[in-house]
Amino acid sequence: MNKDIFMELLRSREYKAVRSILNVMNAVDIASLLTELDDKDLALAFRLIPKEKAADVFAEMGNSMQAYLVEVFTEKELRELLDDLYMDDTVDMLEELPANLVTRILENVPSEKRKQINVLLNYPEDSAGSIMTTEYVDLRKTTTVKQAMAHIKQTGIHKETIYTCYILEHRKLTGIVSAKDLMTMDDDLTMDDLMETEIISVHTHTDKEEVARLFSKYDLLAIPVLDEDERMVGIVTVDDAMDVMVEEATEDMTKMAAMSPSEKNYFETSVMEHAKHRIPWLLVLMLSSSITGMILTRYENAFAAVPLLVSFIPMLMDTGGNCGSQSSTLIIRGIALDEIHFSDFFRALFKEFRISLVVSVVLAAANGLRILIMYKDPLIALTIALSLICTVIISKLIGCALPLLAKQVHLDPAIMASPLITTVVDTCSVMIYFFIATHILPGI
Amino acid sequence: MNKDIFMELLRSREYKAVRSILNVMNAVDIASLLTELDDKDLALAFRLIPKEKAADVFAEMGNSMQAYLVEVFTEKELRELLDDLYMDDTVDMLEELPANLVTRILENVPSEKRKQINVLLNYPEDSAGSIMTTEYVDLRKTTTVKQAMAHIKQTGIHKETIYTCYILEHRKLTGIVSAKDLMTMDDDLTMDDLMETEIISVHTHTDKEEVARLFSKYDLLAIPVLDEDERMVGIVTVDDAMDVMVEEATEDMTKMAAMSPSEKNYFETSVMEHAKHRIPWLLVLMLSSSITGMILTRYENAFAAVPLLVSFIPMLMDTGGNCGSQSSTLIIRGIALDEIHFSDFFRALFKEFRISLVVSVVLAAANGLRILIMYKDPLIALTIALSLICTVIISKLIGCALPLLAKQVHLDPAIMASPLITTVVDTCSVMIYFFIATHILPGI
Repeated sequence: MNKDIFMELLRSREYKAVRSILNVMNAVDIASLLTELDDKDLALAFRLIPKEKAADVFAEMGNSMQAYLVEVFTEKELRELLDDLYMDDTVDMLEELPANLVTRILENVPSEKRKQINVLLNYPEDSAGSIMTTEYVDLRKTTTVKQAMAHIKQTGIHKETIYTCYILEHRKLTGIVSAKDLMTMDDDLTMDDLMETEIISVHTHTDKEEVARLFSKYDLLAIPVLDEDERMVGIVTVDDAMDVMVEEATEDMTKMAAMSPSEKNYFETSVMEHAKHRIPWLLVLMLSSSITGMILTRYENAFAAVPLLVSFIPMLMDTGGNCGSQSSTLIIRGIALDEIHFSDFFRALFKEFRISLVVSVVLAAANGLRILIMYKDPLIALTIALSLICTVIISKLIGCALPLLAKQVHLDPAIMASPLITTVVDTCSVMIYFFIATHILPGI
Repeated sequence: MNKDIFMELLRSREYKAVRSILNVMNAVDIASLLTELDDKDLALAFRLIPKEKAADVFAEMGNSMQAYLVEVFTEKELRELLDDLYMDDTVDMLEELPANLVTRILENVPSEKRKQINVLLNYPEDSAGSIMTTEYVDLRKTTTVKQAMAHIKQTGIHKETIYTCYILEHRKLTGIVSAKDLMTMDDDLTMDDLMETEIISVHTHTDKEEVARLFSKYDLLAIPVLDEDERMVGIVTVDDAMDVMVEEATEDMTKMAAMSPSEKNYFETSVMEHAKHRIPWLLVLMLSSSITGMILTRYENAFAAVPLLVSFIPMLMDTGGNCGSQSSTLIIRGIALDEIHFSDFFRALFKEFRISLVVSVVLAAANGLRILIMYKDPLIALTIALSLICTVIISKLIGCALPLLAKQVHLDPAIMASPLITTVVDTCSVMIYFFIATHILPGI
């Protein structure tokens, strides 16, 4: 939909046309179209959205737009909206709204729903409880397929997902039946006949990253969430799991580049926020790399005697840093995908050792040869080649070990990535380099 | 399930117990349990899996296990398996099997299915066509809810997903109806009454990364795939989209650490394969960073006169590299998530410029002060502070510009990450540093 045409129609009060447009558009695209409007137009346009779609559009909006709308809505409008809004979307919104608007909303939901909202609001961020919804289809063992279909027909329309039905006994989950089974099985079979009893479930406090991993591992559409007493309290749906996966990958990449992760996207984050996310690690790394510099000053005599030595420092430091980041990236990602565990420590280390032997010999040969041809000095070529071999091996071992050790002491492995590894490896490579140089080269 | 107990039962021929265990386990966990067995036990155990679960377990297995089973299966077993295997899983397997086994399989599927398989096999890797399945529920406009439910009850059991039904007219897609609508709406309504006509669809050649993005943006369970003539040819389901998202994030991280991506996980990849993925970029980067080294040799006189100068090189290079990687990581991820486009080039550049001003002043102040206190030399402190400011600004601009430019010339932005940026930035920072030093410090 062309924004200009839409705004033109809105301003010239062609409400019928606007309504027809909103009628055929999907909620995600409407929400993104509305971001272009100013506040007054926003309220007007929102009121023109077909009623059955309004809550979906609202759920897709940014927090500031939601806050504005909640502020200008009449009590009746607010109640209608809250009625149609899924529980998890309501809670997502409340988590970000200013306190006065939260109060306004809680006053406008029925007390039963208010209680549920308050429970959900209290789950820790990043937990399954914080992203679950309390709306799902529950059935009993003795229900027949026919009864189940009738029950869903009557009540299912308000449930976020009806494609997995949960068979409860005294609030404990005893089995699951898919809508596919309901739609394809004989009318007279009971849930007891159909239900699967080996159930993948999580607890309210399970990390949402772990929840997302289960979705991807078992190809689920929804996962039941249990409380401490193993009673079923909600479900997480696949769309939320997908969002978590995207977020977590972004968060890991951000941390791996020495920044604090942001929940907002690039352009939404202000310059000062960006700077705040970037400066702390830069400061730490800058001061740590000064240590490498101080070590260098101890070898003033060496590079006074053979000034050429200085020119190989960037190459050695960079290669060490790159080798270390390669290893640490693979290990960090392996840990995130649950493919590598701390129990694999020595296995991974031994693997990296063998890889680094191959890699270092190739690099040393290439560079040694280049130096031999360019400078015709076999001793310098030998010094560089040996330094490269040692640097590559040590870098890869450090790059492999640090993320696994971090995981073991409950730090985020993602911080043990390129920038930190580079700084640690720099110091090692400079020390190795001058140790080898002072032993091989005459006159220093 | 404890592996040892399982293997013990299998070897002591307690087939009834093994069967009961396999009966309650889910397909994913069975497949992972079977990886522990040697070939002979594998064939035996596989034959004990309940028939309705066997194809699902097979689809979850690694390629070498699949190849072994296809080889030892009787014609009858093979036909039964292929009958139950979803089309996309069959194609996935065929793409990796040796040619003689592919022939064996194609001989054992009915000619209609063989034709479909051949079409699917010909879609380019990474395209929607290569991950789609040709099994879906299609209905006509005039079908009523009641008829649709009866139709699904009769045929739906073989469809990979029945939760979205596609309304076709002469093979063109005219609308979609969700199973939720079928289950909750009046029996007498027709598809024409219910169907949504604003359809998110892709083409067979659409990049699978783009397909995954649509799933996450619009919260879909399945997406229809059209051919060049806009006829519907298949669907991609959310579980496959999720796999694509995980793979693509891993691939990006791998490329961002200067490696060729691997399709296998860390321990499955051999030492020589790992080395092969890592060496090319290391060689390129190593030789490029030698350029920085050569530039350094031009300033031999400078660091002969003020040897302390050398000791700040690692800090400047590292800080420049880190600043550049921060910017490039955010831009690369933004491009991958479709949040940043080439049209944002100047907007992003200006944003990075303002961020780099804030960041550089803070870093320069911290480090300048440290140097002033440690070395009591205001000119050196000034040299370092100024060099830092220029290095940070240039690094962030380069880190921002290169990925966007790469995207524009159809290169993968992910290669413009930390390692390459670091190398480019190194050269700049050394040149800036000595330019400033020779102009400020007396005697060089």
